[in-house]
Amino acid sequence: MPVIDLNSDVGESFGNWQLGDDAAIFESVSSANVACGFHAGDPSTIAQTCRDAVAAGVTIGAHIAYRDLAGFGRRFLDCSYMELFDDVLYQLGALQSLARAAGAEVRYVKPHGALYNTMLHHEMHAQAVVDAVAAFNKDLPLLLLPGAVALDLADDAGLRGVAEAFADRNYNGDGTLVSRSEADSVIHDAGRVTANMVRLATDSTITAVDGTVLPMDAASICVHGDTPGAAAMARAVRSGLENAGVTIESFV
Amino acid sequence: MPVIDLNSDVGESFGNWQLGDDAAIFESVSSANVACGFHAGDPSTIAQTCRDAVAAGVTIGAHIAYRDLAGFGRRFLDCSYMELFDDVLYQLGALQSLARAAGAEVRYVKPHGALYNTMLHHEMHAQAVVDAVAAFNKDLPLLLLPGAVALDLADDAGLRGVAEAFADRNYNGDGTLVSRSEADSVIHDAGRVTANMVRLATDSTITAVDGTVLPMDAASICVHGDTPGAAAMARAVRSGLENAGVTIESFV
Amino acid sequence: MPVIDLNSDVGESFGNWQLGDDAAIFESVSSANVACGFHAGDPSTIAQTCRDAVAAGVTIGAHIAYRDLAGFGRRFLDCSYMELFDDVLYQLGALQSLARAAGAEVRYVKPHGALYNTMLHHEMHAQAVVDAVAAFNKDLPLLLLPGAVALDLADDAGLRGVAEAFADRNYNGDGTLVSRSEADSVIHDAGRVTANMVRLATDSTITAVDGTVLPMDAASICVHGDTPGAAAMARAVRSGLENAGVTIESFV
Amino acid sequence: MPVIDLNSDVGESFGNWQLGDDAAIFESVSSANVACGFHAGDPSTIAQTCRDAVAAGVTIGAHIAYRDLAGFGRRFLDCSYMELFDDVLYQLGALQSLARAAGAEVRYVKPHGALYNTMLHHEMHAQAVVDAVAAFNKDLPLLLLPGAVALDLADDAGLRGVAEAFADRNYNGDGTLVSRSEADSVIHDAGRVTANMVRLATDSTITAVDGTVLPMDAASICVHGDTPGAAAMARAVRSGLENAGVTIESFV
Repeated sequence: MPVIDLNSDVGESFGNWQLGDDAAIFESVSSANVACGFHAGDPSTIAQTCRDAVAAGVTIGAHIAYRDLAGFGRRFLDCSYMELFDDVLYQLGALQSLARAAGAEVRYVKPHGALYNTMLHHEMHAQAVVDAVAAFNKDLPLLLLPGAVALDLADDAGLRGVAEAFADRNYNGDGTLVSRSEADSVIHDAGRVTANMVRLATDSTITAVDGTVLPMDAASICVHGDTPGAAAMARAVRSGLENAGVTIESFV
Repeated sequence: MPVIDLNSDVGESFGNWQLGDDAAIFESVSSANVACGFHAGDPSTIAQTCRDAVAAGVTIGAHIAYRDLAGFGRRFLDCSYMELFDDVLYQLGALQSLARAAGAEVRYVKPHGALYNTMLHHEMHAQAVVDAVAAFNKDLPLLLLPGAVALDLADDAGLRGVAEAFADRNYNGDGTLVSRSEADSVIHDAGRVTANMVRLATDSTITAVDGTVLPMDAASICVHGDTPGAAAMARAVRSGLENAGVTIESFV
Repeated sequence: MPVIDLNSDVGESFGNWQLGDDAAIFESVSSANVACGFHAGDPSTIAQTCRDAVAAGVTIGAHIAYRDLAGFGRRFLDCSYMELFDDVLYQLGALQSLARAAGAEVRYVKPHGALYNTMLHHEMHAQAVVDAVAAFNKDLPLLLLPGAVALDLADDAGLRGVAEAFADRNYNGDGTLVSRSEADSVIHDAGRVTANMVRLATDSTITAVDGTVLPMDAASICVHGDTPGAAAMARAVRSGLENAGVTIESFV
Repeated sequence: MPVIDLNSDVGESFGNWQLGDDAAIFESVSSANVACGFHAGDPSTIAQTCRDAVAAGVTIGAHIAYRDLAGFGRRFLDCSYMELFDDVLYQLGALQSLARAAGAEVRYVKPHGALYNTMLHHEMHAQAVVDAVAAFNKDLPLLLLPGAVALDLADDAGLRGVAEAFADRNYNGDGTLVSRSEADSVIHDAGRVTANMVRLATDSTITAVDGTVLPMDAASICVHGDTPGAAAMARAVRSGLENAGVTIESFV
């Protein structure tokens, strides 16, 4: 029986600013990428998010980021290896402490925003993230896009790399994501999104915009949490997968 | 044979800004109050400080603070119980992660600056700190001024409270510190400071400015790290104590 | 013919975090309290808000605050006179620059959140705000609650103090606001709110919760911008006032 | 009679952290690059620096930067055109307000750190800085390295671009600076530094490390403020120039 994980970003409020409908997302996903305070997530938001994840039976992952609240971690920051290594350790420990107070543990790591993209090709930053995760806990898997250089480096370091697919994104024929600057980068039709994800979970393939059928060995599917209709899309993906006989379960 | 601890604030640099002569301080103290990033201490500074503490055989404590880099944690911030509780857990976890990467553990907690003063009488903030430390690790002692309301609350919560004396501060006849607004609040003469601390370590008394001999059951002595002559004073206190047959040792 | 000003808080988004429906608020108010970056408002949010205010013909005021993004400026911060004086000047200049790029000017000043409350009784902080506004531009009025100590200090400094009423808040018999911890602190019924404000604008009185008819010489009415139903309430107050023959106009 | 400007970075303390010996620097320079709060400089530091500049008769320039206190503005931040444009306007206005309270005006603009380097070749960021300065005040010159793309863009925008030389840096034969990763990037001998700067001021040439004599039309010389011996080097350069009959004067 096929099994796949559903992950989404949560805990991205900050102080008085609310973002995303985390309560609705927790009903659909098996893994929660919890902000660690560097792109979003003040300590009280993080603590409440961890308690909600525990109540919903959802696995907690650390959504680490560049130190950039004003840019929500979406801007590349040209920091050094040591700065990034130490910034990651700081974030992992901070989240771990709040997760433990909620009766849970940090179980995986997913870079956020610009840091996520950097993991694809920036060897120095990829190595810093891999080394920091390994220094924190060698058993934590690292969740990334297939083909990311950080997945190879994770492998070298004895870390488990886990590849994910994006539920509502179109792929090019070479397996890369269609750029957000293109009109058809995002799929808005829930039926098409769900059909794609069922095929991914059952056949390990995805059909690119040019019709190419791509092999894709993804153990997790990322659904958005902070766009209009995000919660409805997450529910659609989950029920579509369950109706197709796919079990939704953390990859940890 | 009398035993006492010497503690000092370290890790208070931030990014490009250097503060204190931590290397010199590590030669004299047995306990290091390491900044956690909320009043000072970026992650790389904290990491290096933890490695230096390990190399020097000095015990690491968490120097928790209000979230106020611009004010160096020296300004009272009227936050809520939950904000403070979660802010403390966040700081403890962040430091723990960097301490572990250096091969150590956070072994005690000392509030910094305005938060230190608030612990004397602000029951709500004192309770938040006590509860957060207890939620993190019930074995961590809390280092405070004798008479602080937080020491009573720590006792109620099953935490160990540890009282400390200030090496170079004068005391009033009622056991409180002479206010910094008074001319004689600080003792600058190393000989007098050392004599006072030897009496404290051997007789558990301190002589107030009005001549009163006060009983003072302090397990630790705080020496400053960031004032001119701080390192020399710390060395003087240490050697004065050792010459008087006092062993310098962490209270943990 | 009676004339009164309607003011509301705008520009309180920050980076990726959106707050309030500023576009709807601009349709109803004559004065916009624009965040200056210390409690909310990144530079691009502020710039866009200034352009929107200009397009809507709304007067721009500086919504100055304590430096506390994590607490949204709602927590008292025990800073010094000079820190507050300089922090206010910094905020006023930053907003002025972005207002001018939009073809406008900062025309008044209103303290935000905890700083607004502090203006009622904290003489040192009130003096710092008054002195900073006077140093920036002696022609800028200061918008505050009737009875605030800062209004007296503004008067002494040759600044114009302007008193405001809160549209949806109940008043005690002594003219103070019913505390937010009380059940009836906020009036949710638009009809009652509007009737109160028409009486304020035409008779310069307000009826307290105990029935006392209070004289109240307010030149402006504050309507909320970031609560559910805020835009609808603002519209109701505006049309209620206009229907009663009151002209809505900036107090500047 | 030859005339040249001497500029240095000042106002780079932040809260409790002191950086540089500004008082000593003010004795030697004619132009002060004052931090604006984004890489360094809290409002009270900026205010005091402006008062000191006025007392010393030194011209005030805005040392604008990427928003990155933790990285001291030395890390490239991949922000958008609008973010940078608005961030620059915000900083210029904030400094202007504090400069005016000290009886002065912002008279020129110099990008700091990573933003300074980006001005050499990053057209989008260069255009954002040029446009923001033009929007603030078309009369403000922009101080940059010779050859920077931002100098061409400034010219197109009707801004005055001013080229500067670095007193203690070696140049390659093509006029670029010897990289800081090379052993001979910095000249430590005050005599050689002074001789070089006298030749620059009197002959408009500089001798590269390979012996090439480069024409260099620089109206200002940058001397460092925050390195050991910085104040002594600044004094040496100034008196060397004066002894050679060069007048030290702001380029504004």
